[in-house]
Amino acid sequence: MEFRRRHLLGLADLEAAEIELILDQAERLKEISSRRIKKVPLLRGRTVVHFFVEPSTRTRLSFELAAKRLSADTVSLSASTSSLTKGETLIDTARNLEAMSPDVIVIRHACSGAPAMLSKVVQSSVINAGDGMHEHPTQGLLDLMTVKEQKGGKDGRIEGLSVSIIGDVAHSRVARSDIHGFTRLGCRVKVFGPATLMPMYVESLGVERAGSMAEAVEDADVIILLRMQRERLTEALIPSLREYAVEFGLNTARLEQAKPDVIIMHPGPLNRGVEITPEVADGPWSVILDQVENGVAVRMALLFLLLGEEES
Amino acid sequence: MEFRRRHLLGLADLEAAEIELILDQAERLKEISSRRIKKVPLLRGRTVVHFFVEPSTRTRLSFELAAKRLSADTVSLSASTSSLTKGETLIDTARNLEAMSPDVIVIRHACSGAPAMLSKVVQSSVINAGDGMHEHPTQGLLDLMTVKEQKGGKDGRIEGLSVSIIGDVAHSRVARSDIHGFTRLGCRVKVFGPATLMPMYVESLGVERAGSMAEAVEDADVIILLRMQRERLTEALIPSLREYAVEFGLNTARLEQAKPDVIIMHPGPLNRGVEITPEVADGPWSVILDQVENGVAVRMALLFLLLGEEES
Amino acid sequence: MEFRRRHLLGLADLEAAEIELILDQAERLKEISSRRIKKVPLLRGRTVVHFFVEPSTRTRLSFELAAKRLSADTVSLSASTSSLTKGETLIDTARNLEAMSPDVIVIRHACSGAPAMLSKVVQSSVINAGDGMHEHPTQGLLDLMTVKEQKGGKDGRIEGLSVSIIGDVAHSRVARSDIHGFTRLGCRVKVFGPATLMPMYVESLGVERAGSMAEAVEDADVIILLRMQRERLTEALIPSLREYAVEFGLNTARLEQAKPDVIIMHPGPLNRGVEITPEVADGPWSVILDQVENGVAVRMALLFLLLGEEES
Repeated sequence: MEFRRRHLLGLADLEAAEIELILDQAERLKEISSRRIKKVPLLRGRTVVHFFVEPSTRTRLSFELAAKRLSADTVSLSASTSSLTKGETLIDTARNLEAMSPDVIVIRHACSGAPAMLSKVVQSSVINAGDGMHEHPTQGLLDLMTVKEQKGGKDGRIEGLSVSIIGDVAHSRVARSDIHGFTRLGCRVKVFGPATLMPMYVESLGVERAGSMAEAVEDADVIILLRMQRERLTEALIPSLREYAVEFGLNTARLEQAKPDVIIMHPGPLNRGVEITPEVADGPWSVILDQVENGVAVRMALLFLLLGEEES
Repeated sequence: MEFRRRHLLGLADLEAAEIELILDQAERLKEISSRRIKKVPLLRGRTVVHFFVEPSTRTRLSFELAAKRLSADTVSLSASTSSLTKGETLIDTARNLEAMSPDVIVIRHACSGAPAMLSKVVQSSVINAGDGMHEHPTQGLLDLMTVKEQKGGKDGRIEGLSVSIIGDVAHSRVARSDIHGFTRLGCRVKVFGPATLMPMYVESLGVERAGSMAEAVEDADVIILLRMQRERLTEALIPSLREYAVEFGLNTARLEQAKPDVIIMHPGPLNRGVEITPEVADGPWSVILDQVENGVAVRMALLFLLLGEEES
Repeated sequence: MEFRRRHLLGLADLEAAEIELILDQAERLKEISSRRIKKVPLLRGRTVVHFFVEPSTRTRLSFELAAKRLSADTVSLSASTSSLTKGETLIDTARNLEAMSPDVIVIRHACSGAPAMLSKVVQSSVINAGDGMHEHPTQGLLDLMTVKEQKGGKDGRIEGLSVSIIGDVAHSRVARSDIHGFTRLGCRVKVFGPATLMPMYVESLGVERAGSMAEAVEDADVIILLRMQRERLTEALIPSLREYAVEFGLNTARLEQAKPDVIIMHPGPLNRGVEITPEVADGPWSVILDQVENGVAVRMALLFLLLGEEES
């Protein structure tokens, strides 16, 4: 099978076989980052623009390293340096970028749908690096890759695994990409969190609501904790971080109810003591740093699939 | 003919033959950006410092891509990260940069004359990427290149063409570089805009004042619209953007008075609905994105001419 | 002798022979920056992360150029772009960086000891690019290299030279690294400055206090002036910059009391008219720009020694 898409806008669009193709490619490329010379010439002379209208550290770094390890040239522009502050429209900025002949535009934007809009006006490939409350598909892919590595059967299948996503599901683009990805690959997905932070029709995405923290934890093979954003406090959606921690935080006491081989994931950055205690974050269940490592591999795979083979 | 300058400070300094040399080189290098592998080793191991004391997106990106496509190494420092905020003088910063052995320093600065001052204290080549209200010579060059491509006769001559520059000519470094460039290559240049935004002795630069918008538009082969800076409002130089748009904005009604094959240019970023309507910006007359594309080529040519041949 | 360390956290840790090894290597690599093609493939495919939590221009640029001239790939994150602003701990940020497989993390941080803490949680090499009021070891090394070049005997020995450090010694990480470095290589080090800006037990570091400006200047082979930080004013540690200049600034009148072949050094950025007059900064005694030039060489040497030979 060949990967025939020009953009990666969300996991909602991808078929299972396409996701598997990306993950297989990521698995093959992952080894490059553990070499002494972490660089292959696959994308030499290609140009990747990182256009981050919302601030980000880990995602931008991960993309930059992915591009550089494939020998692509990278340039980046951020909200503060961009002409957006001079009143230029996003589409005009995009067309301007386009006129400089990039091969890929990696965009993070506070507005849901911004990458999709961009993909309609440019010839370059567009990768969504997180858009508003919509999707964060490369995070979804790295989460899938991590679960496959940790819990995949022979041939790496993760069908039938039980995945619980706990926290502010309503506002989380990570949750949305994870839900699409894990359900597509045949996992059972449960969500749990404060009622004020659950999306209205979450069942329509093919997931179940857990009725309690215990239920969310008990039979999960994988627990994904979401970052509790402090701005939810000012929006009066949760009473306090302390109370959130008591009700929805994962600690070792709660983990005792879980399967012994459960794995704990978190997209980072961690709020230690809020959604996760330090003991859990640093414990043997935690695969949080594997996620970060796989992030580079997944992004290398995407860049390669979107660009590397188009003429060969 | 050989290009024998060490710096590019402004188009006022250049002879017609030098400008033609740069544009010819740009035309030859332009094709690199349309290749799959957009990279040639002409400037491998050379160092280009981008020193942007005034914020910029497109110009910085364009220079960075130009340098990278020639395989040069680039580093950049901006106002906010620079020691200027610690009270260091510009000359001391420049000497410090110099001591790190760059080959080219590309500088944008709010003060007219800053690049010229720099060029006197450093051994590296200095390229002016826009200084105060003085010049923006690479913008002038890309504008010339675009007009040559679009309207040049056989052998690319643009002598005798009529170029109208409309808007805030007094404060515009783009206008100044365009005026020098187009008059040098034999074009007739007219300027038009609010009386408060016309330079006092503009005729001394070899241009005419148009008496009305109609006159500026009617017999022009090329119309260059300038960006209306919002800060002119607070300076009480124009009553409102809305009134500016009515009097000096280019719309399709006004374009009907123009030659059928007129081309419309704008240095960006666009104020849609102010100096240009969306219909004009996106219409068949518009060569605004060609300008951006040519920007990379012109900057590649300059870097190459300033550095590439010095010892060969 | 081989360099067997994985990190460079401070000069206090290094033996004289190790310092000499770095400086010899720097002397060999320095010549690369004066070539037309300033690039060697020694660290091709290695990844250097520049993690600057405190702002910096010259140090960051110097490290970036050092890495690029050795063909390493570089990425950088700064305080403003980093997740630290989202409440992530430094250790979590470090572990995240680590998971992306960098070879070296170059860190500048406002907290003394941050690089040492990092070095305990990551596998990568850590280079201290300045931590709080603790050390700035690459500055110390470039200062040593400059003195060896300027004043070293045959075989480059600087033993027995008299070095005076003048200014805000108490708050200066440069002073601390210089004191360790120069005493380790056998120099006599004197310090002088306002009593409020002298460390309490400075003699325990093996240096003398000069009793007057005259005494600090008179028999010095090397005078190192420290930058007077404006924030000391608000802390009421000095009455005014003007008075500081009168009492502790170096001017040509004071230099007449000095040895005729004294050299003047300053870590930059200069406060002209405060700790140093323009005549002194730009005079024949000044080796300030040599320091900057040697900075790139010293950083290349370090990167090479920490990484380049580990498996060969």
